[in-house]
Amino acid sequence: MENIIKPAESEVSIRVPYADTDQMGMVYYANYFVYFERGRTEWLRAKGLEYRSLEEKGTYLPVIESYCKYRAPARYDDLIIVRTIVSEIGSCSLQFSYEITCLGKLIAEGTTKHPFVNRQMKPVRIPEEIQKILENKNG
Amino acid sequence: MENIIKPAESEVSIRVPYADTDQMGMVYYANYFVYFERGRTEWLRAKGLEYRSLEEKGTYLPVIESYCKYRAPARYDDLIIVRTIVSEIGSCSLQFSYEITCLGKLIAEGTTKHPFVNRQMKPVRIPEEIQKILENKNG
Amino acid sequence: MENIIKPAESEVSIRVPYADTDQMGMVYYANYFVYFERGRTEWLRAKGLEYRSLEEKGTYLPVIESYCKYRAPARYDDLIIVRTIVSEIGSCSLQFSYEITCLGKLIAEGTTKHPFVNRQMKPVRIPEEIQKILENKNG
Amino acid sequence: MENIIKPAESEVSIRVPYADTDQMGMVYYANYFVYFERGRTEWLRAKGLEYRSLEEKGTYLPVIESYCKYRAPARYDDLIIVRTIVSEIGSCSLQFSYEITCLGKLIAEGTTKHPFVNRQMKPVRIPEEIQKILENKNG
Repeated sequence: MENIIKPAESEVSIRVPYADTDQMGMVYYANYFVYFERGRTEWLRAKGLEYRSLEEKGTYLPVIESYCKYRAPARYDDLIIVRTIVSEIGSCSLQFSYEITCLGKLIAEGTTKHPFVNRQMKPVRIPEEIQKILENKNG
Repeated sequence: MENIIKPAESEVSIRVPYADTDQMGMVYYANYFVYFERGRTEWLRAKGLEYRSLEEKGTYLPVIESYCKYRAPARYDDLIIVRTIVSEIGSCSLQFSYEITCLGKLIAEGTTKHPFVNRQMKPVRIPEEIQKILENKNG
Repeated sequence: MENIIKPAESEVSIRVPYADTDQMGMVYYANYFVYFERGRTEWLRAKGLEYRSLEEKGTYLPVIESYCKYRAPARYDDLIIVRTIVSEIGSCSLQFSYEITCLGKLIAEGTTKHPFVNRQMKPVRIPEEIQKILENKNG
Repeated sequence: MENIIKPAESEVSIRVPYADTDQMGMVYYANYFVYFERGRTEWLRAKGLEYRSLEEKGTYLPVIESYCKYRAPARYDDLIIVRTIVSEIGSCSLQFSYEITCLGKLIAEGTTKHPFVNRQMKPVRIPEEIQKILENKNG
C-alpha cells in the first residue's frame, strides 16, 4: 500500500474474542479478513449506504482477491481499530485497503477486490448511488 | 444421553485444523457444533439422502436447540470421529445425538433439535423420504 | 432459564458480520456461542475484572457444558445485545446465563458452565477476587 | 502463480461444512485460508513431518503474508481438493502455494509466507529436518 490510511477515513473498533485466537496465543490469520469485512461495511455506512440494502436491491460485492500482510500479533481482548479506504475504482469493481492498529501500533494491512454482480452473479456496472459516493470522495 | 452411540451408526472422521484451536491450546467450544453438523450431514448421506438436495426441494432443517458436554479436549491435528444417531422423532422435528471420540477416548457429546421448515421458515411435516428412512431405521 | 435477565446486568452490543451468516441467510448456530463468550468477558469487565489478567495469573475458565435455544434468527448487520448473568455458583465452578436480543426481540438464550482450573487444567477453588465479586452481587 | 501445481504434489480433500457458507450461498472468503492451512499441514505430513511435532520442539511457522484469488465459488457439501507446494525457500522463511479445485474446476489459488520462529517469536534458521525435506524435493 502506497498511502497510509488517514484517520479521517472510516474506522471501526473491534474487541477480539477468544474464539479468534489460536494455540499460538494470537489471532488466527484468516480472521483478519473478517475484520476487513467489518471495515468495508462501516466504510459504506459512513458514506450513508448500507451494504445490506444494496443486496436487497440485487447488487452484491463478492470478493475476487484478498491480501493481508501481518505486522504484529493481535491478541485476545485487544481493542483493534480497522481503517478502510477505497483504493481503486474500476468501471465494474472496487478495491478496498485496510489498516488494523492496536493502541497506535500497526497490526496488519491488506486489500480486497470486489466486482459488482447481480443476483445471478453476473458482473454489472457500479450502481449509481455508489458512483455518487465515490465522486463526492474525490470532489 | 442414555445410550452410547453404536459404531454401526453413521460416523465421519475430521482432522482438527489449527483454525479451530484457541489460546488454551485446545478446540474452541463453539467449533464442536460444526463437527456435529458434519455428523448429521453424513448421517443423512449414509441413509441415501443429501441434505443439499433436501434444501433444493424447499425443505430446511434449522437448529432450534443445541447442547454440548465437553469431556476431554480435542487438539490440533487430532483425527476425531463423530458418531451420529437420530435420538427423537416428532411429527415436525428431529433430534440428533452425537458422540465425538479421539483414539477411543470420549471428547464430547451433545444434541441438536431441528424443525422441518419451508423456504419461508414455516414449520412443515417431516418429508416422506425422511419418514421412510426413519421407519427403516426402526424396522 | 427461570429469570429474565435484567437490563441492569452486564450487556454488550455486537454488530453481526457477514462471516457469521450461512446460506439460510441467518447467523449459523455455532456463532451464538461466540456472542455468549463476548457476554461473559464483558460481565467480568463490568465487575472490574479482566479474564485476560485471570489467565495471566494462572486461572482458566474452560467450558464444560453449553446450551442454546434459538428463538428468532439474527441476520447480517443486526446490532444484537448480549445480556449476561451468573446463574449458578459452585465451589469450583460457575454457570453463566445469556439472552441475546435485537431491537427488543428475543433472538436466543443459553447457558455455559465453567470449572476453575489451573495451567495444568486441574480444578481449583474459585479465586478470591471472583469470590468477592460474587458476594457483592448478592450483597 | 507461474506453475500449475501437479497432482504428484501433496493433496487433501475437504468436505465443505454448512458453517463455511455465507448468505451469498457460497464459501465465505476467509475460510479458504483455513483450507490452505489444511493443505500445508498435509504437505508436511506427506514429507514425513508433523507440524505438531515441530511446535513441540519449539519451532513455529506463523503467517506473515497471505493471498487468495477466487476463481469460482465453492458451495456447501462440495468435496474440494487442496493441492500444495513449496514455491519459495528463503534462509529463514518458506512460501507455500495452493490450488483448490472441485470436480476438476479451479476454485481458488493463493499463497502464504511463513518465517521460522522460536517460542519467543524470534526468527530462526530453517530447522535441519525441513532443510533435508526441501533438498530431497529438489534432488
